[in-house]
Amino acid sequence: MSGNSFGKLFTVTTFGESHGKALGCIIDGCPPGVEISEEEIQQDLDRRKPGTSKFTTQRREPDQVEILSGVFEGKTTGTTIGMVIHNTDQRSKDYSKIKDTFRPNHADYGYEQKYGIRDYRGGGRSSARETAMRVAAGAVAKKYLKQRYGIEIRGYMSQLGPIKAEKLDWDQVHQNPFFCPDPDKIPELEEYMNALRKSGDSIGAKITVVASGLMPGLGEPVFDRLDADLAHALMSINAVKGVEIGDGFDCIEQKGSEHRDELTPDGFLSNHSGGISGGISTGQDIVAHIAMKPTSSILLPGKSIDKDGNPVEVVTTGRHDPCVGVRATPIAEAMLAIVLMDHILRHRGQNADVNSTVPVVPASVNE
Amino acid sequence: MSGNSFGKLFTVTTFGESHGKALGCIIDGCPPGVEISEEEIQQDLDRRKPGTSKFTTQRREPDQVEILSGVFEGKTTGTTIGMVIHNTDQRSKDYSKIKDTFRPNHADYGYEQKYGIRDYRGGGRSSARETAMRVAAGAVAKKYLKQRYGIEIRGYMSQLGPIKAEKLDWDQVHQNPFFCPDPDKIPELEEYMNALRKSGDSIGAKITVVASGLMPGLGEPVFDRLDADLAHALMSINAVKGVEIGDGFDCIEQKGSEHRDELTPDGFLSNHSGGISGGISTGQDIVAHIAMKPTSSILLPGKSIDKDGNPVEVVTTGRHDPCVGVRATPIAEAMLAIVLMDHILRHRGQNADVNSTVPVVPASVNE
Amino acid sequence: MSGNSFGKLFTVTTFGESHGKALGCIIDGCPPGVEISEEEIQQDLDRRKPGTSKFTTQRREPDQVEILSGVFEGKTTGTTIGMVIHNTDQRSKDYSKIKDTFRPNHADYGYEQKYGIRDYRGGGRSSARETAMRVAAGAVAKKYLKQRYGIEIRGYMSQLGPIKAEKLDWDQVHQNPFFCPDPDKIPELEEYMNALRKSGDSIGAKITVVASGLMPGLGEPVFDRLDADLAHALMSINAVKGVEIGDGFDCIEQKGSEHRDELTPDGFLSNHSGGISGGISTGQDIVAHIAMKPTSSILLPGKSIDKDGNPVEVVTTGRHDPCVGVRATPIAEAMLAIVLMDHILRHRGQNADVNSTVPVVPASVNE
Amino acid sequence: MSGNSFGKLFTVTTFGESHGKALGCIIDGCPPGVEISEEEIQQDLDRRKPGTSKFTTQRREPDQVEILSGVFEGKTTGTTIGMVIHNTDQRSKDYSKIKDTFRPNHADYGYEQKYGIRDYRGGGRSSARETAMRVAAGAVAKKYLKQRYGIEIRGYMSQLGPIKAEKLDWDQVHQNPFFCPDPDKIPELEEYMNALRKSGDSIGAKITVVASGLMPGLGEPVFDRLDADLAHALMSINAVKGVEIGDGFDCIEQKGSEHRDELTPDGFLSNHSGGISGGISTGQDIVAHIAMKPTSSILLPGKSIDKDGNPVEVVTTGRHDPCVGVRATPIAEAMLAIVLMDHILRHRGQNADVNSTVPVVPASVNE
Repeated sequence: MSGNSFGKLFTVTTFGESHGKALGCIIDGCPPGVEISEEEIQQDLDRRKPGTSKFTTQRREPDQVEILSGVFEGKTTGTTIGMVIHNTDQRSKDYSKIKDTFRPNHADYGYEQKYGIRDYRGGGRSSARETAMRVAAGAVAKKYLKQRYGIEIRGYMSQLGPIKAEKLDWDQVHQNPFFCPDPDKIPELEEYMNALRKSGDSIGAKITVVASGLMPGLGEPVFDRLDADLAHALMSINAVKGVEIGDGFDCIEQKGSEHRDELTPDGFLSNHSGGISGGISTGQDIVAHIAMKPTSSILLPGKSIDKDGNPVEVVTTGRHDPCVGVRATPIAEAMLAIVLMDHILRHRGQNADVNSTVPVVPASVNE
Repeated sequence: MSGNSFGKLFTVTTFGESHGKALGCIIDGCPPGVEISEEEIQQDLDRRKPGTSKFTTQRREPDQVEILSGVFEGKTTGTTIGMVIHNTDQRSKDYSKIKDTFRPNHADYGYEQKYGIRDYRGGGRSSARETAMRVAAGAVAKKYLKQRYGIEIRGYMSQLGPIKAEKLDWDQVHQNPFFCPDPDKIPELEEYMNALRKSGDSIGAKITVVASGLMPGLGEPVFDRLDADLAHALMSINAVKGVEIGDGFDCIEQKGSEHRDELTPDGFLSNHSGGISGGISTGQDIVAHIAMKPTSSILLPGKSIDKDGNPVEVVTTGRHDPCVGVRATPIAEAMLAIVLMDHILRHRGQNADVNSTVPVVPASVNE
Repeated sequence: MSGNSFGKLFTVTTFGESHGKALGCIIDGCPPGVEISEEEIQQDLDRRKPGTSKFTTQRREPDQVEILSGVFEGKTTGTTIGMVIHNTDQRSKDYSKIKDTFRPNHADYGYEQKYGIRDYRGGGRSSARETAMRVAAGAVAKKYLKQRYGIEIRGYMSQLGPIKAEKLDWDQVHQNPFFCPDPDKIPELEEYMNALRKSGDSIGAKITVVASGLMPGLGEPVFDRLDADLAHALMSINAVKGVEIGDGFDCIEQKGSEHRDELTPDGFLSNHSGGISGGISTGQDIVAHIAMKPTSSILLPGKSIDKDGNPVEVVTTGRHDPCVGVRATPIAEAMLAIVLMDHILRHRGQNADVNSTVPVVPASVNE
Repeated sequence: MSGNSFGKLFTVTTFGESHGKALGCIIDGCPPGVEISEEEIQQDLDRRKPGTSKFTTQRREPDQVEILSGVFEGKTTGTTIGMVIHNTDQRSKDYSKIKDTFRPNHADYGYEQKYGIRDYRGGGRSSARETAMRVAAGAVAKKYLKQRYGIEIRGYMSQLGPIKAEKLDWDQVHQNPFFCPDPDKIPELEEYMNALRKSGDSIGAKITVVASGLMPGLGEPVFDRLDADLAHALMSINAVKGVEIGDGFDCIEQKGSEHRDELTPDGFLSNHSGGISGGISTGQDIVAHIAMKPTSSILLPGKSIDKDGNPVEVVTTGRHDPCVGVRATPIAEAMLAIVLMDHILRHRGQNADVNSTVPVVPASVNE
């Protein structure tokens, strides 16, 4: 397989450039009988789409999804689901500057060296616009996980630059444009982002995603452990530079007696492991964090070279997100949903005969 | 594909349990003509093998590798390479306690729920012993990368519990049992580990791996980005809970003007991105960090349940590493080598015709 | 991977139902820099499209392909190529009969048992209409093979029912609606097909495909031998029941001294092996034959059951090909092209360093 | 994936050369809880092993299989199963002749052009000896299919040169060294083979394999149709040049009214389709035929070239099968078992929720 597919049994393959005709994807392996509509998928797309607040890019894309196959009379048929989103707001502009230079820290230089050719308009294939199709595919996975197994996928922005969410109020996440679960931080976030936009600079962010209601036993060691596939999925999102499962890097300084999650018949006593132990789900909440770098498309001039190797100064004009993390929560949720979906299918295939008589430990003693 | 293979073109598949007859692997897709011997592979295995210092498990395994196929007259032939390591120090002991209970935070519980059966002796397939074959396969990849492209793969322990390496002296890494690059920290590390062993507890660690001398252009966006595949590979190592590329989680608080790596004709001015931008290598050093949790096999009693769901108290006796990070550096190096090997092959396949006329920027201005 | 992708490095994934909104495909792994246009792809699609003679289904589909991504300024960029064909002639009709019964020997019964649901309109996903996207993807492969390596992919109908082509005149293949290379047989074919249509029955056919100008060395034993992948590709075409490489089933009665293709410095002396030996191309012409069954969509009543298991009599009305082999030549060519494309990429990846000094034997002594 | 793995969920990867240290394989994805022993696997290996009659090669290999992992207390654990067979009868001989020339119609020339290097001893990786591991892996699949689903896999030699089996008496198949189901043909076969051996020539054969007791619904259209994967599997066996499902090439001359398999509540009325329609199993017997070419390792001199391109005359001495078809029945059975195993796992993964209420039609009216 080349690199634009994800998942072994629930396989998502995408296409599309930032300023091309359309984005699209194919889902192969979706179970039959899942009730799904364009409207449901659209809900997740609307959460990701640009231009909904002044803190994101001002490109106006309705991101209207169209299902072309695989759904019949409102239900999936088990055959491939084709979906497209037509690009509508590709402003014609002068690309002569961007065409022959490489924005520092962008994919520009790598694509040029790799392929010897690139669609330079708006970043082409390397644009985060590509993630729209991940969200569309993830919406199908989410629906199945919820409907069939009661699994819930949620996410939030846990940090933006120096500002950390200190409360986790799930009801607040969708009440603000940042997906911030701590309502007390919203004024601070707004102020910070306003100042940032004026400065022409960008900032990093941290996103947290959680899956609840999962069964134990998902994951295919030794290489396709659930955490490994999840790290793959999350690190494949544009601008992600780090992935943590559970306590992540904090566990470097933890003792074993502190880190281990003790089990009792009434539930696990802690969840340092983020719901995955030995690469297999424990039934606790899956918790993962990602670090998103500050976008390099900024107004402040930076040093680079042109195609002939001459030094140039680059300023990125155009419409860009000053913090790509702001719209990233639905994308991370989508990737988590796709990974779980794929692993449920894989697990069922191999282990359909298993009837473990070992009691399932509740996710936590409080449940 | 099920879960015990890694790599699309350079594919490593492994088998073997901690206390079974043997460990083994098959490498499929190794280029022909690579000079390789059991002795060379053994060198890397010896770096990982247990029992070489008092800070690791006292199990005595020579980890002697045998090449069964794919190498003829000292060179790889392009056909599958089969390798085995026979287990020699599986002490017969009484497993009656471990058999019916689940060590907290171990793979025990997940395996039981997943498969309904498990080889409980020494952790079976979930034992870190499995990583020996990764090191063997990685040694072949390393040899090719070095011989054919001059790419060097190195690693070190950057932190153990609260003790951080503050100097990076590559020559020191192999002068101490910790793979620590900072000689000033060795006494502190020894003291810490001695106290830890006495306490019966365990501790986490951080490992850093670096690839130097790489070409730009490796990586297959959007899902098989180089960073995504690397995250997959590294997170698949036992006990890893976090992966960072370059600045990783530090970039959350960085501004775009600070994070971006500017290019000049004389070289990149920084390497915050860890050598990967837009999922594609830039030609700078690849730098990745992993967080390893404290092993849960400790002498301090912990709460758990047995197979019938009754509460029990578990104490893990036997031979265990108090810090699995101590022996993890060669494993992380191996996975990095395998990922790069696979991506070079994939890149060559698709882009054999490309002759980019864009000058290659030196990895850093200092080179 | 689920089942709607073909190829490891040059990967084609398709979607679409007979009477859905659209058909589509994604090509992942196409080398960059290939000059390709919708017009070129359309040429192959026009060779397959229905309704061009009275010997095929009278459904009128322009099969107009649209490229949505992956091609920029007339050249492939190395990123995924998305293509769609909108269905335009899906007659609304009464499906109440077909809905609850299973046409004998159709995919109907199997789909129902497999998925518990199916898009019954025109056969849904099991319709041969799906092959349009194979032809579109194959056109891209053909272009590359021709442009980059001078490899030519051709095909013809070698037999229809009892009528066998006895001459191979490549210039004639496109002068008749049957892709028959023997002009003397055209009147006979026309007469046969006219009688067949009147009888309401259908007939089988044999198609032969040939690749010329190939390099030796393609194929990845032991499982992904070139012949094995080709058999997979060709058998995956609707209605195919048999695949032969070279002499195929004739070799059962051949002696080794007769079958073996002797080599001389001036060329191979015969090509019984169809250009593949030991699973690897020899540089001779690849020759493969496929047997296509008579379609089961016929006007003659047949016994079947309905969804409740009751016996019913089924007559398939609607627009159908009386011989699906008539339009199958471009489809078989496309699959051959895709297989070769994929194998060239795979071969280059692993064996980029090989410089065999062994002289390449000409395909035949006559060249 | 490179080319030495077969199967997506039940994945078999093999290694080993004819005259190397050992052959081996890894099965990844075997369901847990399957009772399996070396003895059971050995039974199938003994059916394939050389030297059991004067009609096969006189190489004496016990083909003793050893299970190295994945089986614990007599049952599979769901983890990878590693198996090896050590080569014991690799006669040291003078390879100077074979080393620098290419046997006509052998893999020699292709391997040399592909890899630039080859293990020339006994054909190396291209030797049919490799198929021993397929048989070992197939034995595990057969056991599961039988034990869990009551599916039976059987095969026989249907033709050797001009001699066709005219009766199908399953009890006879294992009463003669040819796997011939027609006892009346044995004297003729013996006479033919004796004469053939004296002449120093070889002959082709046809093998038929059958799976009985299958459920409808297996197969993953459009590319991984059950027939397509089966064609891939069977064509990957050394010396196979043709694959037929059901009536195969006979259907070219069949009418649709003749070919279609009518259904009644009491069973299918015929099985022209070989148990697969639209790429999906119907529940009827799967029937497939393969054509095996005469081996090119014969005593009669043939024209070829050496490594420098000079014309040479080649005579293949050594121990060879005059008809590779004689030992091929267990190999073809093994590949059929592996394909079905893989498809059952894939089907269960995606369609675990399906509860079709449509009655299952008996395989035939006679059952």
